[in-house]
Amino acid sequence: MPQVEQAKRFQIRFEPVGRRARCTRPISIMDAARQAGVGMLSFCGGVGTCGRCRVRILQGQASPLSETETKVLSPEDIARGYRLACRAVIRSDAVVDIPCSSQPQEQRLKLEAEERPVQVVAPVRKQCIDLPPATSQDTRSNWTRLEDALFAQYGIRLEAPDPELLQHVGPALMAGDWNVTVTLRGDELVHIEPGDTSQRLHGIAVDLGSTKIAVYLVDLATGHVIEARGIANPQVSYGEDVMSRINHAMLHADGTRQLQSAAVQAINSTVVSLCAAHALQCQDVLEYTLVGNTAMHHLLLGLPTRQLALAPYVASVVRALDIKARQVGLAAAPGAYVHLPPAVAGFVGSDHVAMVLASWIQAPRTCLRVDIGTNTEISLAHAGRIRAVSCASGPAFEGAHIDCGMKAAPGAIEHVWIEPGSGEIRLVTVDGAPPIGLCGSGILDCVAAMRQAGMLSARGAIQPGHPRIHKTASGTHELVLVSSDNAPKVTVSQYDIERIQLAKGAIRSGIDVLLDAEGITHQQLDRIILAGAFGTYIDPVSAIQIGMLPGIALDCIDQVGNAAGAGARQMLVNTRLRQEAIDLSHRIQYLELTIYPGYSRFFAHALRL
Amino acid sequence: MPQVEQAKRFQIRFEPVGRRARCTRPISIMDAARQAGVGMLSFCGGVGTCGRCRVRILQGQASPLSETETKVLSPEDIARGYRLACRAVIRSDAVVDIPCSSQPQEQRLKLEAEERPVQVVAPVRKQCIDLPPATSQDTRSNWTRLEDALFAQYGIRLEAPDPELLQHVGPALMAGDWNVTVTLRGDELVHIEPGDTSQRLHGIAVDLGSTKIAVYLVDLATGHVIEARGIANPQVSYGEDVMSRINHAMLHADGTRQLQSAAVQAINSTVVSLCAAHALQCQDVLEYTLVGNTAMHHLLLGLPTRQLALAPYVASVVRALDIKARQVGLAAAPGAYVHLPPAVAGFVGSDHVAMVLASWIQAPRTCLRVDIGTNTEISLAHAGRIRAVSCASGPAFEGAHIDCGMKAAPGAIEHVWIEPGSGEIRLVTVDGAPPIGLCGSGILDCVAAMRQAGMLSARGAIQPGHPRIHKTASGTHELVLVSSDNAPKVTVSQYDIERIQLAKGAIRSGIDVLLDAEGITHQQLDRIILAGAFGTYIDPVSAIQIGMLPGIALDCIDQVGNAAGAGARQMLVNTRLRQEAIDLSHRIQYLELTIYPGYSRFFAHALRL
Repeated sequence: MPQVEQAKRFQIRFEPVGRRARCTRPISIMDAARQAGVGMLSFCGGVGTCGRCRVRILQGQASPLSETETKVLSPEDIARGYRLACRAVIRSDAVVDIPCSSQPQEQRLKLEAEERPVQVVAPVRKQCIDLPPATSQDTRSNWTRLEDALFAQYGIRLEAPDPELLQHVGPALMAGDWNVTVTLRGDELVHIEPGDTSQRLHGIAVDLGSTKIAVYLVDLATGHVIEARGIANPQVSYGEDVMSRINHAMLHADGTRQLQSAAVQAINSTVVSLCAAHALQCQDVLEYTLVGNTAMHHLLLGLPTRQLALAPYVASVVRALDIKARQVGLAAAPGAYVHLPPAVAGFVGSDHVAMVLASWIQAPRTCLRVDIGTNTEISLAHAGRIRAVSCASGPAFEGAHIDCGMKAAPGAIEHVWIEPGSGEIRLVTVDGAPPIGLCGSGILDCVAAMRQAGMLSARGAIQPGHPRIHKTASGTHELVLVSSDNAPKVTVSQYDIERIQLAKGAIRSGIDVLLDAEGITHQQLDRIILAGAFGTYIDPVSAIQIGMLPGIALDCIDQVGNAAGAGARQMLVNTRLRQEAIDLSHRIQYLELTIYPGYSRFFAHALRL
Repeated sequence: MPQVEQAKRFQIRFEPVGRRARCTRPISIMDAARQAGVGMLSFCGGVGTCGRCRVRILQGQASPLSETETKVLSPEDIARGYRLACRAVIRSDAVVDIPCSSQPQEQRLKLEAEERPVQVVAPVRKQCIDLPPATSQDTRSNWTRLEDALFAQYGIRLEAPDPELLQHVGPALMAGDWNVTVTLRGDELVHIEPGDTSQRLHGIAVDLGSTKIAVYLVDLATGHVIEARGIANPQVSYGEDVMSRINHAMLHADGTRQLQSAAVQAINSTVVSLCAAHALQCQDVLEYTLVGNTAMHHLLLGLPTRQLALAPYVASVVRALDIKARQVGLAAAPGAYVHLPPAVAGFVGSDHVAMVLASWIQAPRTCLRVDIGTNTEISLAHAGRIRAVSCASGPAFEGAHIDCGMKAAPGAIEHVWIEPGSGEIRLVTVDGAPPIGLCGSGILDCVAAMRQAGMLSARGAIQPGHPRIHKTASGTHELVLVSSDNAPKVTVSQYDIERIQLAKGAIRSGIDVLLDAEGITHQQLDRIILAGAFGTYIDPVSAIQIGMLPGIALDCIDQVGNAAGAGARQMLVNTRLRQEAIDLSHRIQYLELTIYPGYSRFFAHALRL
């Protein structure tokens, strides 16, 4: 008789965190980790190519070693029992160790930004109102009663009701004994509460980055930020960068929804805790604004992202949208809206528009705005025009694809210099912790210092001579930054240098194309604005030294912090700025680098150090 | 050591249908029946008072007999093992028999109606369109591309997109190779399909009655009904009448949602099967109209109904609403709308407005419209005015609260007369089946015939004398209609007569108040329009004989069938009629009977036979 496999319950314990996944069917270790809410690095989105999800099975059995794993894992790793979490499948009780190198790290987030002063033109207003009670002589419906009273007392003609909100009208009238506070957005009712709550007027601005999410609780009456919080984007467990997340969304039937819900849950839990900290409830959130790159924006809306990943990289939608917060699952008042400012193109998202808006200066100036990330958006304002490009700078500046790379977490080397006389190497780490790796600004400094100290040729070849330059087994050279018996060795390899050259070359060629398109030189730039966490923490001298930025006077370079978040906050409190952003988005002309005449020449030139 | 009760799996089998409920925790038999999808009568909404849910436990154990059951069940029933399904709780395997008397019966539904000819002014239109493909030179977003093409080719300026619909634009453009058909409602995109589908233009009209649901699949190009289906409203398992359903919604945290989902699932499964029968898919449904009484309307929208059940019976909303079908869970094209025509007041719903609209005759006539149900809505049009009342006629005409009452299912006595000479009693049953009970038209005929034959006094007392009039154990009299050894005895008791008097008195007093308010007599009525299933099947002669209707010439009485459904269909295909219905709803003036001067006098007078 054929034996039917019974659904067997088993559990996988994850060390060192100690959390458990309870499973009933064979499951990859990565899926089990997600299920248990245990962070797990993955750059490739779980297709077995990046090798970041190395884990060790301490107890129990997994599926036999796959061909992919034999390719990606070193023989030593295999001998020590390492597996790829995305490939190894478990079907009975097991204990799995996640080494530090496979755990996502807490990182420093930049929340503050220089801001232009913003006038308040709030998107919503509150009105406290007394209604005549219903009687047998006056059996008007709750809605009609409210409509009539708002018109009689304030001349307001309510728009057709949001059906969701109708649920709340009756109970609010009962609980408030016919005295209620309504929240209006234009003439639409978005919230109704018993009694007088007109003193509470709050909104949330969100900068939804692919790595970090910044959430701002804002007083809509004054425009002031009450509190800001930064959190890591939990979508990272589905893929470190945008492309691997899109990959995840394309490969899994439920992928888009998983990514959507990961982002929404992270925002919601932050909103819940921000509200609780200020004696508010989620229902007190009356409006959201949210900016992000086009992929983040599309995933938030549950839109397909396939077209974003394939040439010619077309977005589903770039125009500004006002949608109900509940429609994307964001915690808010029942009828509250999320305003999503416009994007420009597939790779120039609403975060860049918000950044341009926040750093906008009325006088026409020749200004370059650079937001460095896996994709770096750059725009050049000149003579009343704005042109923008998007450069595939890759994740090197975020510490990925660099041998000893890491995020800007404690222990990350964030600044490096080499004493000109002694050739001694000096390091600064995040929080002064013992050095364990290099973050973006550190690797940038390091390359600049190596070039200054003659350790690098203009083409990027590591030059032997310095005592810290070692020859590797494969015959190339590497710089050993940290080497001691009781700490991890931190090195910069020839491969790392190439990665940085590719990244900075992508950015610089974008800048050069923009200058070329305008027919100007970098001497004509009045200002360079660097936004985002990386742009804030880098040393602009290093950036100029390695040729990532053109050489302009340092006092013409502004490091403005999270300008996209600032733009989101400004648009939250001032609806006129939303129209300004729409106008801006129409003025920004997108240049597709890959089809710009002679682009490869620009790029080749930009690779030089 | 204390023993923890383990979640034990067990099953309850229901006979005679043979379906099983699989349970893990103690459950009332009624809840288990619902879970198994087995129909079960309940008039009281499961509070143990109506005694309609009698079942017999054939195998297994239930909770001990409750006090409620000892009151409601007869000692014979208790001796034979009968229990109330809403009271008896099962916690291990059991077999339960549902006797016929506790099973909801299939009943005759009236779907057709006399209709005024309707012009087509369709709510949606389709446009087939070719778009220029995206290239590296033209990276406009899908939405902008569509917007631009619709404006360039047809001068249409698309409204801001429904975010839900954005999901479908990219895939449709890909699948159709840049050739798509858009469905527009005004200038809003509600559907997008690859290729040319402009020949398919369909909608659904629904009359959501508390007992029956009529669903019409309509061709929006021609206005013709393709097919109509009638189904029983499955909400009946939560309470036979509207009040017990409201009761259920108030008593259970999840009650409103349960009722909402029962109605929506019933409509959806009918729509699925209607579409399948005509080679369509649910996505081909581009618009809905739906009418119903205010409670049905509110439950469909998930609105609170508490206020509908308590004086002064205030609705949450009466105005017309256009909401997304998906928002209430109705199967349709992604952006399709449901149009909900306006109601007038808590007890004069959109079904009555639709009925007035469908039977509207341009020339001003003095016309009484009566839609008989548990609540009977009556409106009187006279001299350009329309006044409406709602009468609590109760469920007697639907066969409930009548000893041998039943719905108009096979075996129901639907017509009765007594031969004037012989005094012989003649019966007509639905489908000619052996008589098992009395439906509404039958009991009405019976009372009229008894009154004609001198078996009833004007006050309603049963007079002895006829051989079929028997004295009961309690000293009152009853008419024995059917009595044989191998069939159920069918009788009409003094109690039944009183129920009918109360029901017809409620209706007649409503009519008399309307006539009084207008200062006219019934002789001035040009026409009486009787709508709904009951109004269609009753003998108007009987209705006049017992004084339910005023005595006007029979050829001035129209029995128009499901006029509410006809109105819903007309509004589906002609959007101008939606505005007409809104105008009508504003013109209809609601009269609250209970506060009409001298109402009790009108009522007392109307009780007489």
